[in-house]
Amino acid sequence: MPNKRTAFFISDGTGITAEALGRSLLAQFEAIQFEMITKPYVNTEEKALQLVALINQTCVDEQQRPLLIDTIVDQKIRRIINTSQALNIDVFSTFLAPLEEELQTHSTYSVGKNHALTKEKEDTYKARIDSVHFALDNDDGARTHHYDKADLILVGVSRCGKTPTCIYMALQFGIKAANYPITEDDLLDSELPKALRPYRHKLFGLTIEPERLASIRHERRPNSHYASLKVCQREVQEVESLYQRHNIDYIDSTHYSIEEISTRILAQAGIERRFRPSI
Amino acid sequence: MPNKRTAFFISDGTGITAEALGRSLLAQFEAIQFEMITKPYVNTEEKALQLVALINQTCVDEQQRPLLIDTIVDQKIRRIINTSQALNIDVFSTFLAPLEEELQTHSTYSVGKNHALTKEKEDTYKARIDSVHFALDNDDGARTHHYDKADLILVGVSRCGKTPTCIYMALQFGIKAANYPITEDDLLDSELPKALRPYRHKLFGLTIEPERLASIRHERRPNSHYASLKVCQREVQEVESLYQRHNIDYIDSTHYSIEEISTRILAQAGIERRFRPSI
Repeated sequence: MPNKRTAFFISDGTGITAEALGRSLLAQFEAIQFEMITKPYVNTEEKALQLVALINQTCVDEQQRPLLIDTIVDQKIRRIINTSQALNIDVFSTFLAPLEEELQTHSTYSVGKNHALTKEKEDTYKARIDSVHFALDNDDGARTHHYDKADLILVGVSRCGKTPTCIYMALQFGIKAANYPITEDDLLDSELPKALRPYRHKLFGLTIEPERLASIRHERRPNSHYASLKVCQREVQEVESLYQRHNIDYIDSTHYSIEEISTRILAQAGIERRFRPSI
Repeated sequence: MPNKRTAFFISDGTGITAEALGRSLLAQFEAIQFEMITKPYVNTEEKALQLVALINQTCVDEQQRPLLIDTIVDQKIRRIINTSQALNIDVFSTFLAPLEEELQTHSTYSVGKNHALTKEKEDTYKARIDSVHFALDNDDGARTHHYDKADLILVGVSRCGKTPTCIYMALQFGIKAANYPITEDDLLDSELPKALRPYRHKLFGLTIEPERLASIRHERRPNSHYASLKVCQREVQEVESLYQRHNIDYIDSTHYSIEEISTRILAQAGIERRFRPSI
């Protein structure tokens, strides 16, 4: 039995939902290596026919049928896609029927309806952009005089993952997250850095395994004092005792993706997601 | 018939897949107003039991059953959740069976398996962080001497959406996207700004409706020359003719979400997503 398989994630919109769902499902089959191909904006009959031809060709080439996870809403397009020889995991056909029955109403089946930026969503868009700019303006301790407006201030040693986490929280959840780097100087002091003291309740700490930190720092400044394992070990140890001394909640980012770090912090800090992005 | 309904998006991981799928499905029912509640990290029997109690209480309070979209992998947890009185859209139960049959193997059903940062994924993580730092370092024309390393250089007038788009492309798809603001001075010149000339093939333009631009700029600098409709109209008109003159592909960001702008640019420019984040 071959243990390689091609999977198509297909959508008439961004393809993000199909991709997220497809990956979650396929991750359950560790023995198989998947070649994953995302095809967004399959929104014309011509594109759908081209795609069917590609899928069927893949079927011939690999002598087995590909998998197809689709979130196509438009029925005409979906009917074309369904003629392909792939195993079709058809999300909307499967789940809209029970929802229609439960809600006693027909679904609108309108292409990309949840993507459109309606008047109502413009406020969300602005809040989101605001949060992104907040994260950028308050990155790396650049400014500390807006901390009163922050939902959260992420602290940690250099290169432990603060910046991408703050940006992700801003983009995905509309959270205003600042971040402040704990430097070697800060670690010499048993007190919290002055700028942070009024905001202890907003602080959340990141930590990381020293080996991982050294490897990340090494890519930035090879063979530096800053990237040496010894320095990383000391900084991590000291920052963790700082967290404990000041009763600051923290998590270890070593084995997590940015999505996991972000959602775990929000869950642990009890901060509600401001909104759900329309993808 | 009541036209309000509570929907729970439940996961033993980040909840991002359940949320994305749930929103896509519910967006098809425009007549109904949904109260959406995301519960990530439901990964112990205790948390599952608490959640069932909350769902059942909601059922009593609202005198109708809530909807439940879940991507829980752990079978023990899922069995508990299934005892609730909600209408259960159970993604894994529904789709894993046909996949198991097709792939002739059992799924691993391992909690959060696709979230774990395995050795193999560390490279992806690093590439992703690199892309984010590239976007930040090359934001707003701050530096132009790394444009040779860019996958894409996004251009447009101030506040048309360049920064969040670049950051999104970096975070979600590992694309190295720089951005360069086209200023009023640049628009006086019929040539491309000097820094951009060697990279015409990497340029992609954003445009926006002048009214929307004025409204966004107005929030930043109320009643300024910069935010006046007249200035916005002129800048947008001139930047669009600049795109046309130099044969630069562009899209109008006015009615799109950041996800849509990003994925449309990649599709139009023919740039492949570097990776798919593990959510």
